[in-house]
Amino acid sequence: VKTEIGVGMIGLGNVGSGVAEALLGRREYFARQVGAPLIIRRVAVRNPDKPRSVSLPPGVLTTDVRAVVTDPAIDVVVEIAGGEEPVGAYVLEAIRAGKHVVTANKELISKAGPELLHEAHSRGLDIMFEASVGGGIPLIAPLRRDLLANRIDRIRAIINGTTNYILTRMAQEGLDYEVALAAAQGLGYAEPDPTNDVEGIDAAYKLSIMASLGFRTRVRHTDVQTTGITRLTAIDFANARDMGYVIKLLAVAERLDGGIVARVAPVLVPHTEPLSRVDGVYNAVQIEGDLTGSVLFQGRGAGAGPTTSAVLADLLDLAHAIVLGARERKYWGPDVDVPVLGSEGHESRYYLRFAVQDRPGVLAQIARTLGDAGVSISAVRQQESSSGEETADLVIMTHSAREGVMADALAGIAQLDVVTNIGSFLRVEG
Amino acid sequence: VKTEIGVGMIGLGNVGSGVAEALLGRREYFARQVGAPLIIRRVAVRNPDKPRSVSLPPGVLTTDVRAVVTDPAIDVVVEIAGGEEPVGAYVLEAIRAGKHVVTANKELISKAGPELLHEAHSRGLDIMFEASVGGGIPLIAPLRRDLLANRIDRIRAIINGTTNYILTRMAQEGLDYEVALAAAQGLGYAEPDPTNDVEGIDAAYKLSIMASLGFRTRVRHTDVQTTGITRLTAIDFANARDMGYVIKLLAVAERLDGGIVARVAPVLVPHTEPLSRVDGVYNAVQIEGDLTGSVLFQGRGAGAGPTTSAVLADLLDLAHAIVLGARERKYWGPDVDVPVLGSEGHESRYYLRFAVQDRPGVLAQIARTLGDAGVSISAVRQQESSSGEETADLVIMTHSAREGVMADALAGIAQLDVVTNIGSFLRVEG
Repeated sequence: VKTEIGVGMIGLGNVGSGVAEALLGRREYFARQVGAPLIIRRVAVRNPDKPRSVSLPPGVLTTDVRAVVTDPAIDVVVEIAGGEEPVGAYVLEAIRAGKHVVTANKELISKAGPELLHEAHSRGLDIMFEASVGGGIPLIAPLRRDLLANRIDRIRAIINGTTNYILTRMAQEGLDYEVALAAAQGLGYAEPDPTNDVEGIDAAYKLSIMASLGFRTRVRHTDVQTTGITRLTAIDFANARDMGYVIKLLAVAERLDGGIVARVAPVLVPHTEPLSRVDGVYNAVQIEGDLTGSVLFQGRGAGAGPTTSAVLADLLDLAHAIVLGARERKYWGPDVDVPVLGSEGHESRYYLRFAVQDRPGVLAQIARTLGDAGVSISAVRQQESSSGEETADLVIMTHSAREGVMADALAGIAQLDVVTNIGSFLRVEG
Repeated sequence: VKTEIGVGMIGLGNVGSGVAEALLGRREYFARQVGAPLIIRRVAVRNPDKPRSVSLPPGVLTTDVRAVVTDPAIDVVVEIAGGEEPVGAYVLEAIRAGKHVVTANKELISKAGPELLHEAHSRGLDIMFEASVGGGIPLIAPLRRDLLANRIDRIRAIINGTTNYILTRMAQEGLDYEVALAAAQGLGYAEPDPTNDVEGIDAAYKLSIMASLGFRTRVRHTDVQTTGITRLTAIDFANARDMGYVIKLLAVAERLDGGIVARVAPVLVPHTEPLSRVDGVYNAVQIEGDLTGSVLFQGRGAGAGPTTSAVLADLLDLAHAIVLGARERKYWGPDVDVPVLGSEGHESRYYLRFAVQDRPGVLAQIARTLGDAGVSISAVRQQESSSGEETADLVIMTHSAREGVMADALAGIAQLDVVTNIGSFLRVEG
């Protein structure tokens, strides 16, 4: 019987410090819940002399990651350093040295989760990664456990706080993208190089993890069709609002005939949908199961406190299982191979905005091109363009059409002389 | 090593049939996830000859509950019969016979959960009760596991679908209580005797379970101050709407200095709060942890599908633990004794509606009585009463005041000659 659980940590930034502070400050409470105290043995950091908010006993800090992952007194390695390499190699080494792992690393789990889990499970070990998606919102555990009996049909999520903050500012204050981005950077919500967030890459990692768990198959981040938010303009937000919509960067994975589709893109969400009201740095995930119907999870998707909460949930759960002598739990997909489909067959309504020449017959030409492709129009708005003198902005909402058909129609429209450019092409979700 | 998990069931109504259908129809999938097939051994029913949607092998149905709870081939007993007795005695007998238990029984868990869990844990067994609160919404597992590291400061919940349906009809269509109740009864959302729902008793059971888990102490349903919805009128809903609020039956448990308070009552919720938009038979629970901040869980709180989903989540989790040879997990409170306080010290704003005599000086008298007690007024509306000729309806919104102070002030107002009656006295939450 274990009388102490040895904890090793890789990384002692904001989240790492939060985890360490709680392990020290709530030690008695955690020991009662788990059945044994959790003791921080070693923490790998780059610079051990840096001043930190948490004070650890002498000798705990080390610059040698291998001293953490191979320490025989360590049962669980908590990885909160982030990135794929070299951290992935360390995690693998920890597993091979017989350690359970708790990680907040979405990139690593998205890219190598199933392989790492296989390595762990073959040794009676587990890898937990609740903090990799949605910060403090329980999502991984519900997908692994609480909704296990369901056939999951759809996951719709706002899971990137940076972009949601930017889009909220654009929607509420009419800001242009660059201005809202700069504001987010000023507040530390966006990084100096915001590519990972604003191009939807971060959201694609997270969606691939949730979709893999939900559909119990392997959905790679490269399977996720990803469109960023950088081409959105204040005009699109004003148009959306006037028509009863909000623009959100939505991560959607859904089951269709013959497979699943997964995509991250800015879309129009009707004001009536709960996801339309998830603002600022909040995250929300809507999961549809065939038994339970639609369940919504909402909360702070990032930040030291929420991420600390999720890391500790996993750590306490693992520690408790160790005390009880349990072997690893499975609950990670690859149950069946479900093909990941292209989006051609996916149907939705669309919002289109064109810059067109401001002369008679333009709308007729565009309408004919859409009609010939089989796409029917539900609403049209034409307004003077702010950008040029001879052009106008034409906004079209379509009825439901297959994306492949829509793409063909757009290709035809792009060739029309009267169309200066295709400004926006956004799906309507819900 | 277990090669099969034997399942016994008490009850085969809508939920029981859903559980049995899934265990038969998804048997292979469940076996892969759990590591061994789950086999229904015996099901206790009142009338074995009743036609049912699910067809079980001959000999499985029995009228003898003891044949289920003592069958040596049964590992887990699923109790979905409901009520406190005789079911509580059966559950206890099952535990004493070495069975794990899964139950959807909020009354039983609210009243006897800690004692039953103690009996189970002392034998290395577990009792799971995700389905007892919020149907298919994961709530018990998040409170037991995902939010375990947090100090929970507040739980606010809409957890009774019947009353939420009635209140939604009253709010959206201006119906009176009796009319909305009859509509709910016609649709099967309310029982012929609706007392348990409309008086808040069902919500108090559920809140006591969540509060016990969240605060890791014992909160009994009798500790929950409970006010039903039967005295609400269409006028209150119209007033609330005009002032930017919705009336909801809210179950709230929160940590104050020196203890916690728990209450179920109709309250005014501002339109800006997510809980104000939870309509119809939907449930939602907002949990505030010191690390994770506010997390919202929303979904269908009742019905055969959602409840089946929750029962199966517990059953699969237990079955998996049995296959892995794990002993019971704890994660149920009584960690510390936290006193449950009366509500006198609780502060909030209030909505008051009086029937008053329609003559000069009435408002002054009421305002003076409130002012003398130290309650200040934030808004006043007076309108002609629909009910009488000589009376008027006076609606007052107060600034924040302690409930004890407010109660004293109301006692003073009740004694004023000009006040015919105190029609409504509702807290404002949020």
